[in-house]
Amino acid sequence: MKVVGVDLGGTKILTRVVDVDTGKSVGREKVPTPRTGPKDVLDAIVALVRELDGSDDVGAIGVGMPGLVTRDGVVDQCPNIPGWDEPVAVAKTLAKALDRPVVVANDVNCGAVAEHRVGAGQGVDDLMAVFVGTGVGGGIILDGRLVEGSRGMAGEVGHITVVDDGRVCGCGERGHLEAYAGRAGIEREARRLVERGRKSKLVELAGDSQIKSRHIADAVAAGDEVTNELLDDAVKALAIGVGNMATILDLPRVVLGGGVIDKLGQPFIDQIAGSLSFGGFGPTVCELALAQRLDDAGVVGAALLAADRLR
Amino acid sequence: MKVVGVDLGGTKILTRVVDVDTGKSVGREKVPTPRTGPKDVLDAIVALVRELDGSDDVGAIGVGMPGLVTRDGVVDQCPNIPGWDEPVAVAKTLAKALDRPVVVANDVNCGAVAEHRVGAGQGVDDLMAVFVGTGVGGGIILDGRLVEGSRGMAGEVGHITVVDDGRVCGCGERGHLEAYAGRAGIEREARRLVERGRKSKLVELAGDSQIKSRHIADAVAAGDEVTNELLDDAVKALAIGVGNMATILDLPRVVLGGGVIDKLGQPFIDQIAGSLSFGGFGPTVCELALAQRLDDAGVVGAALLAADRLR
Repeated sequence: MKVVGVDLGGTKILTRVVDVDTGKSVGREKVPTPRTGPKDVLDAIVALVRELDGSDDVGAIGVGMPGLVTRDGVVDQCPNIPGWDEPVAVAKTLAKALDRPVVVANDVNCGAVAEHRVGAGQGVDDLMAVFVGTGVGGGIILDGRLVEGSRGMAGEVGHITVVDDGRVCGCGERGHLEAYAGRAGIEREARRLVERGRKSKLVELAGDSQIKSRHIADAVAAGDEVTNELLDDAVKALAIGVGNMATILDLPRVVLGGGVIDKLGQPFIDQIAGSLSFGGFGPTVCELALAQRLDDAGVVGAALLAADRLR
Repeated sequence: MKVVGVDLGGTKILTRVVDVDTGKSVGREKVPTPRTGPKDVLDAIVALVRELDGSDDVGAIGVGMPGLVTRDGVVDQCPNIPGWDEPVAVAKTLAKALDRPVVVANDVNCGAVAEHRVGAGQGVDDLMAVFVGTGVGGGIILDGRLVEGSRGMAGEVGHITVVDDGRVCGCGERGHLEAYAGRAGIEREARRLVERGRKSKLVELAGDSQIKSRHIADAVAAGDEVTNELLDDAVKALAIGVGNMATILDLPRVVLGGGVIDKLGQPFIDQIAGSLSFGGFGPTVCELALAQRLDDAGVVGAALLAADRLR
């Protein structure tokens, strides 16, 4: 079966036609995300899908988006899309316009499905994928199936507490994994240290612009002390978070991806692996693997998940 | 269907005939656990089951035990049963002797199934049960089914890290939940503080004997400062552990049971609930409920789980 995968992000909408039996995809289309509210966003998706649809035999549409998606495809919150102020029945609206079954899911969960089925998670039935970018998100696969949770929000690993009464997180609470490992958390702490008189190549490289993952990698390469300290904290936080998930869910493998992981690469993963510890009956070993799908994890995962749900 | 539930503990073996449709049980039998090795333990189970079996129409046997149980019923480790030095094919051996299907599972997982189906977890599909006794264990139910994990050891919440580089746990690692909330961890820390010159009613009450959960409750009632401090640490550790599980698995409810919880009761649960915090898209609320099944969670859960597996 062929399914159109849609990856709706804060800046762009990506679509592809995915062969769900092979995971291979064709016909990439891309438009900027309208900043004029949900109606225009959904219209843009409909137009994109119709374009692809003409040339292919498409049985369904899968949409991944960065929000709180209920199991019936209502998107309650979507902070990165301007004007998304109330719940929108995305699945129902798109299905009516496109006259095909539509499945909507959280984009990070779609990414986890893609890694499990056609990426670094192949070969195991139990897996967690952790994506470290501006924030930290994750998706859980158990017994080969995505864990969705009672409200569709399982996998929110960025907001587990790893340091009691620790750094303030973007969400306002303290000590969350995202505050230590996410790009935005690292940026906030680096700028705070510089304000207090420390020197840092990381802040120099970015200047007044946002610190990007590549700045972090460049600052490490330059031996910047502040960056090394912040990454030591990130490694420790990720080792606690990943180790706890592996213990509680008895996971043989965790896949790590996202912009920060992608730029820091295997040496960073090796550091996290070196900091993992297990006790009790917990796993004596949990393999950490670098994510294999970069830009297409969202579209491919959304299509695979849609096919699963409709089977 | 009727299933014999067996709860094999370090000191006693309990059995009951459980009606798996109602969760009601009859015909309680109990013998001390033989301390002469696995063969004698299995012989004792066979004798007990045969006794019950004569008077009832029993379709299967479910066994819960405090060890590392693989999915095919081989018990790799069982530290509380003397002489269990190597893996034993418990399910296969018992099935042959009793000529009926036998399912073997970790006892804490059986307890979680019992709470979900006939206890404080009724009415939700996603649940974690956390049992705080000498140690801390747990079981996870997602979409109505027990999560077993790749090696059958999911739910090992006692050995998640809640304090980086924190107190030494019984397993040798540092900062685990069990080191703060388990009875043995509380005892170790109380005796350490007394050795360092603190006064504590808790240690006075127990004297040279093991500190029991009821001593902890009595010391709280007497306003003992050391006990209150240790329980504040336990509350904080449980709130981090339970909160992280609720966040990552999107749980609407967590059931708390075991000797320590049972003796400290609802006020202790209320303290933990008051210390929970959630950020991001995580649950805005997770209900904490006091476990309802005490002595019979193991036998009933083992029988229910066996019936599930064989259906």
